[in-house]
This record gives sequence, structure tokens and C-alpha cells, in this order.
Amino acid sequence: MADYTFFTNPMSRGQIARWALHEVGADYETELVEWAAKSEAFLKANPLGKVPTLVHHHGDHIHTVTEAAAICHYLAEMHPEAGLLPEPHEKAAYFRRLFFASGPVEQAIMANSMGWGVDDPQKQGMLGFGSYERAMDTFETLMADRDYVCGDRFTMADVYVGSQVDWGMQFGTIPKRPVFEAYAQRLRERSAYQEAKAIDMKLVEGSSQ
Amino acid sequence: MADYTFFTNPMSRGQIARWALHEVGADYETELVEWAAKSEAFLKANPLGKVPTLVHHHGDHIHTVTEAAAICHYLAEMHPEAGLLPEPHEKAAYFRRLFFASGPVEQAIMANSMGWGVDDPQKQGMLGFGSYERAMDTFETLMADRDYVCGDRFTMADVYVGSQVDWGMQFGTIPKRPVFEAYAQRLRERSAYQEAKAIDMKLVEGSSQ
Repeated sequence: MADYTFFTNPMSRGQIARWALHEVGADYETELVEWAAKSEAFLKANPLGKVPTLVHHHGDHIHTVTEAAAICHYLAEMHPEAGLLPEPHEKAAYFRRLFFASGPVEQAIMANSMGWGVDDPQKQGMLGFGSYERAMDTFETLMADRDYVCGDRFTMADVYVGSQVDWGMQFGTIPKRPVFEAYAQRLRERSAYQEAKAIDMKLVEGSSQ
Repeated sequence: MADYTFFTNPMSRGQIARWALHEVGADYETELVEWAAKSEAFLKANPLGKVPTLVHHHGDHIHTVTEAAAICHYLAEMHPEAGLLPEPHEKAAYFRRLFFASGPVEQAIMANSMGWGVDDPQKQGMLGFGSYERAMDTFETLMADRDYVCGDRFTMADVYVGSQVDWGMQFGTIPKRPVFEAYAQRLRERSAYQEAKAIDMKLVEGSSQ
């Protein structure tokens, strides 16, 4: 049995987790989840029925991880030899941006896609992201002075944060700005990104035939 | 100078960060942020102008952390002697629930408070939280079989996840269910929770006089 069972669908945020699996060189098997017919094993691992879900077979135990950002960070923790965890002086930048991208950015993108928003500044203050425009401006500011989340070195946070940028620009949910374009371009050059993407693209083609 | 400068407002998610500061016994000074008149120092530290924002004075460097969940985890990392980081076998539970509470739960609460939601299952699938009801049910399932996020031991994830539950029930944004009530009660008994809460309550009283 492989170390990890990876429940995914190629047209989902599962692409983020697969990239993370390849960055750490994990031994994993893929279980494709069909939207219309979710297996009991899958729903037991993740009652929300969301992909990606990662099951780590660890001795007598299994550990289940959900949420794409959590899966990325968990894999970095389990594979310290990959060198993708933050060094002590990088931790503030790493966790700040990882939680910013999985919290306010995700919330802003989804609200904007659904046509949800408020103009009242007091209500904007209640929302963790304020407004879509402010969230995008802040996101740009947080990435404008650096090549990667932690500065000049790629870490696991870039898999998640960078996927938000790369995927967001592709689907039109994140504006194409030079800071974002240059960042995404750096990430697309990584071999683990390309390997993972090729697998998912092949699965997408197979399922549409 | 204290080790940390803590920008907060007593009636905000800053309460979560203050509790975390007390759990690790951090040496910090508080800078109160007025909604109407945000200082330049504060806006430089956090362009989104959100509290809480934590500035860590570390030798010649400063490290800025934003996002309540990131601040909690960062403090656990900087103060390992407090014993609030997850052990290796606890990491899946810790990061899964920390990101679930700061992502889908936060998103579901905010959408529900604003009256936003969709009935179309396909659109629900796009949303990270599905629907408010599903997010709450999943949250309950994730906490039903344990006293704390990682099982029987309190960790830093409980400061964030527990604050969502405690604060959410207080404001009516999270349903009062026995699993949530029992969990919040366990947390309210902690001395760091009580110390932090007392400081913020005193600040709230002072500002309303």
C-alpha cells in the first residue's frame, strides 16, 4: 500500500494537493471521486464530501487531512527532507500569507464569483476580506516585494498561494497584474508543478472522451 | 521594548490573538487601533488595516503577522516551551481543523450573516463551504469525538477553533449545540482565556464610558 491515498477530481482544488505531493516526492495512490457517486470510504474520510482529501497510512493509524492549504503544509511537515518548511525567520511571512490566501483571498474570490458584496464600510469591516478590490490590492502588496512567499526561496506556502494566483488568473477570478503574472510564471517552471499538471490534464482529457 | 507589539481593538478578533499571547506567556505591549483613525505605523504593518496585527521585534528584524489563525500558530512556533504545538501524530488533526475553522467555517458564518447563499448544488460545490448548514454539521462532526482539536490535549489550534465556537455562539452566528457548548465550556476554564478576556472586557467598558 502506498503511504498516502489521495481522493481527488482532476478539475478541482485537488490539483493543488497533487502538486504538493510531487514537491515532496510522496508515495501516493489516486482515488478519483465522481461528483455524482461518492464512495462511503471517501465520505467517511471527509463528511463534507470535498476534494482534495488526503489519507496518510502511518503504521497502525490513519490520519486524514482536508483543506488544500492544510494538505500542503502537512506534507511539508511529514517530509522535512524536501526543505519546504519555513526556517524560523521565514515563519511570519509563511503563515501570514498561507492563511491570508486560504482565508480572505478565497472568501473574496468566491463572494465576487457569486456576485456578493457590500458597500457599507462598517459591514466591510465585519467581513474578513473587506471588499474584493481591497483583498486583491492587499494580496498584491504582500507579494510585490518578493519572488516567493518567504522571499527568495520557494517553500510549501508557494504551492498553495501560487495556485490561488495561477488558477485564479486562468479562471478570471484574480486580476492579471504584473506581480501575479511574474510570480505564476516562476512557479510554472518547477518540475513538480509540470508533472502534477500533466497527470491531471490527462485525467481531464480521459474523462471528457 | 516588549518582544511583541499587538495592534488590536477589544471588540474584534483581536480577542483571539490576546488569548494566544497569554497562553504562551508572551511579553507584549498593546496598541489600540481606532476604526476611524488608523495610524500610519499600523497601516504599514497591515495594508488591509485589519486587527489583530502582531509585530514581532526580533533582534534587528521585525516580523509582521496578520490573520488571527496565523498569529495563534506563529506564537506556538515561537514559544515551543509552552507545549502548544502539535506532536507528529497530532499534526493532521491540528492543521485540518485550524484551516477548516479559518476557511470554510469563517466563510459560512460571514455569508450567513450577510444573507448570502445558493441552493443550486453545483454552485454549492464551487463554494468551499457548500452551505451554512453543511459547514456547521461538518464542524460538529469534526469536534464530536474529542475534547480538543487534537484529542485529549489542549493545543494552540484550540485557541482559534475554540474562539470561533465560543464567539460564534455568543453572537448567534454558530448554533448552540451540545458538542459546541461542552467544548466552549472546557476552554472558558483556562486561566489564559480568563486573563485575556478580562483585559479586553475592561477596555470595552473604558471605551464606552
